[in-house]
Amino acid sequence: MSVDLETAKEQLDLHLDENLESDLTAYDIAHHLKTLKHHDDELFNDYVKQLDPETLGDVAMELPESLLKDVIENVPSEQIVNALAELESDDATDLLQQIEEIDEDKAREIFDRLDKDDQADILRLRSYDENEAGAYMQTELFSANLAERLGDAVARLRELKAAGELENISQLFIVDNHHILKYAIPLEELILFDFSKSLRAIIDEKEPDFYKPHTALDSDNIKDVVGIVQDYDLNVIAVVDSRGVLLGRITADDIHDIIEESATEQIYNLAGVDDDAEDEETLVKAGKARAIWLLINLFTAIVSSAIIGLFDETIASYVALAVLMPIVASMGGNTGTQALTVTVRRLTLGEIEFKDAKHVLKREVGISMINGTIFGFVMGVIAWFWFDKALLGVVIAGSMVINLSLAGFFGTIIPLTLKRFGIDPAVGSAVVLTTFTDCIGFFSFLGLAKWILL
Amino acid sequence: MSVDLETAKEQLDLHLDENLESDLTAYDIAHHLKTLKHHDDELFNDYVKQLDPETLGDVAMELPESLLKDVIENVPSEQIVNALAELESDDATDLLQQIEEIDEDKAREIFDRLDKDDQADILRLRSYDENEAGAYMQTELFSANLAERLGDAVARLRELKAAGELENISQLFIVDNHHILKYAIPLEELILFDFSKSLRAIIDEKEPDFYKPHTALDSDNIKDVVGIVQDYDLNVIAVVDSRGVLLGRITADDIHDIIEESATEQIYNLAGVDDDAEDEETLVKAGKARAIWLLINLFTAIVSSAIIGLFDETIASYVALAVLMPIVASMGGNTGTQALTVTVRRLTLGEIEFKDAKHVLKREVGISMINGTIFGFVMGVIAWFWFDKALLGVVIAGSMVINLSLAGFFGTIIPLTLKRFGIDPAVGSAVVLTTFTDCIGFFSFLGLAKWILL
Repeated sequence: MSVDLETAKEQLDLHLDENLESDLTAYDIAHHLKTLKHHDDELFNDYVKQLDPETLGDVAMELPESLLKDVIENVPSEQIVNALAELESDDATDLLQQIEEIDEDKAREIFDRLDKDDQADILRLRSYDENEAGAYMQTELFSANLAERLGDAVARLRELKAAGELENISQLFIVDNHHILKYAIPLEELILFDFSKSLRAIIDEKEPDFYKPHTALDSDNIKDVVGIVQDYDLNVIAVVDSRGVLLGRITADDIHDIIEESATEQIYNLAGVDDDAEDEETLVKAGKARAIWLLINLFTAIVSSAIIGLFDETIASYVALAVLMPIVASMGGNTGTQALTVTVRRLTLGEIEFKDAKHVLKREVGISMINGTIFGFVMGVIAWFWFDKALLGVVIAGSMVINLSLAGFFGTIIPLTLKRFGIDPAVGSAVVLTTFTDCIGFFSFLGLAKWILL
Repeated sequence: MSVDLETAKEQLDLHLDENLESDLTAYDIAHHLKTLKHHDDELFNDYVKQLDPETLGDVAMELPESLLKDVIENVPSEQIVNALAELESDDATDLLQQIEEIDEDKAREIFDRLDKDDQADILRLRSYDENEAGAYMQTELFSANLAERLGDAVARLRELKAAGELENISQLFIVDNHHILKYAIPLEELILFDFSKSLRAIIDEKEPDFYKPHTALDSDNIKDVVGIVQDYDLNVIAVVDSRGVLLGRITADDIHDIIEESATEQIYNLAGVDDDAEDEETLVKAGKARAIWLLINLFTAIVSSAIIGLFDETIASYVALAVLMPIVASMGGNTGTQALTVTVRRLTLGEIEFKDAKHVLKREVGISMINGTIFGFVMGVIAWFWFDKALLGVVIAGSMVINLSLAGFFGTIIPLTLKRFGIDPAVGSAVVLTTFTDCIGFFSFLGLAKWILL
């Protein structure tokens, strides 16, 4: 038995032994299960079935699609139903969605066996688009009516917690008789009050807006909601519908995940990769999404090649040009990518917007011109000695100053313009940029060469 | 007066009017102040001086270096001292650091006027390296001794909150007589207990490990701490020293910022940009950091050019090769960057590690080979018709299959290897990769051409 397998078994045994405390997270357990599966299918099935419903739900969410498939096939539906019931509504919805992608019939069977409340929650959450705040909320929260006594609300919290229906509470949301959200009191305030008082009385003690809640509409873009949570340093934000009715809440740990997912999406988009397609297990789906960007890149590469084609006689009479021209294009591409990346990121973080264009352009073109001049000079000297021809040095130096400066300009203006028209500045901008830097690089270098050298 | 300026003044007036509620965040106020400054220096100074200490501190943290400089020069030191005293210890330390970078004497003067406790906090936090968890903690927290009655602890919370010394509380940290952290009780549990009980009695009611706190060592790497907070979905994590003494806490909103900063760092590193240098106001510092990567890129571009140089006679006798060769290099670079980006990100997110190399390589090389074959075929046909020569099509198709497949291989193996040796896989890997894809692209294309065509 391999060391890996032995460790995994040992850790899982420790976790399953009720008399021992184990510190394993769902992530850890999923990791150990992967190791088991790698060595022995039976062992994997055996251990998965022994997990209690709450752990099974959390672990299932951490498993890749291929292993989740094994879970669905081998664990009795009853156990999966119980696991879903233990999950918070947002997580239950996600997991059921994943199950549906693997086996629709199974997903329907499981859904039918859930209780009516859980079914309603899942249907509601699934009705939202993936950019909408509603899709990220959980419906489990601690709320009370304005007329209630604080002590009664706390008694209800005790019951809900004992029943395992509520966790990670940091606010009491207070609604009126129409379930419209009126106030939110953080627990750190709540604990200071006399429990025999009514919530109305507690709120009246403070200024009118003291307990005004931070809210998001269920139809708000989730990225804007993340922005509010960050600006106000919130632990939780309430989600309401257009009439103000309290629907759910989004907690800080969900915000962590969204920030990280958004960053991944941006990094992937800059490289011409689709983050959703990459999550697929099959090569073909991920490959297809990447091929789209490669196709666009092929088209633009042909355009820059056509520019080289304009100068075929110049190259034929002086082959050193063919040797040196990729350097001009490559340095331009890199300089432009630096400006592009900084601009895209600063736009995302809200540090700059379109109206700052002049200031940002000045900075980026400034940096590119300085670096263009330095590296143009260095490469000019190198080319001069390499091919023993001073004028060749002048040509490459000149074209590098032109290409690197314009690279800075286009690397900045492309994302600013995309953003101005409401297009995600990370998507496709790198391909557009390198089209410019390649074309300008080849044209300026070969054009200057034709003019000066021949 | 411009519309911008008018709006900014209006919003700030509203904020300063004590009888009106204003919803402006520090970020909004900083934004409006920037607009004022842009139009009128005096107006800027005027409004900054009117901010109350708490707001001044928060706003100062949102201002760029150049405006912070104006604040330091124009706002009386007394006001800045009060603003620092209102900030949480981690923020006060950051702001003082920023002031020091602008004017060391002023920073010293302000520091000397702070009270002894604030001074001690700042000295302690400044003693940490920027990767250490200690540098990110705040020392303000809600703690109690095991022997205390819950009611007494809550009474202290009331006083500390009334004095404005504590906010954003979600746990009570319980220490022994040596200030060693023993337990942490979330407020959602605390509120359920009888306030006349001692904490000892409350803890004894549950299983031994029920209130075991999640902790980080002050010397832990902050990225590992973020990982723990994410794995366990925490709102707060305690920071202790090597003996277990409670030093401070890191809250969810700090974690948000760290996740976002880490993502920015990674995006910048992939593009050869240094995130710290970009924060500098001067062009020269940012430009210098970028120039280092451009220098490395220049060197590697010269290496690939030298490879072209090996085939100068081949190119001289058939110029179409010079026209087509950048396409092979560009498509390889893009394919490799896709594999590289996905691998770097998945390594960061902990989805893969070095021991998964075989599986990851199979996937990435698989995708690259499929796309290499498709685009090799497409480009082969295009080249055949473009230059009316079938064999040229065969050459470019063959070299693209080779280059794109190897691009997938190197795009995966480079970050995996860097990570294996404890090097950040985002730093420099893109430059190394394009060196490979350029060299292999030129060599395979020109080599095949020499062999097949001539």
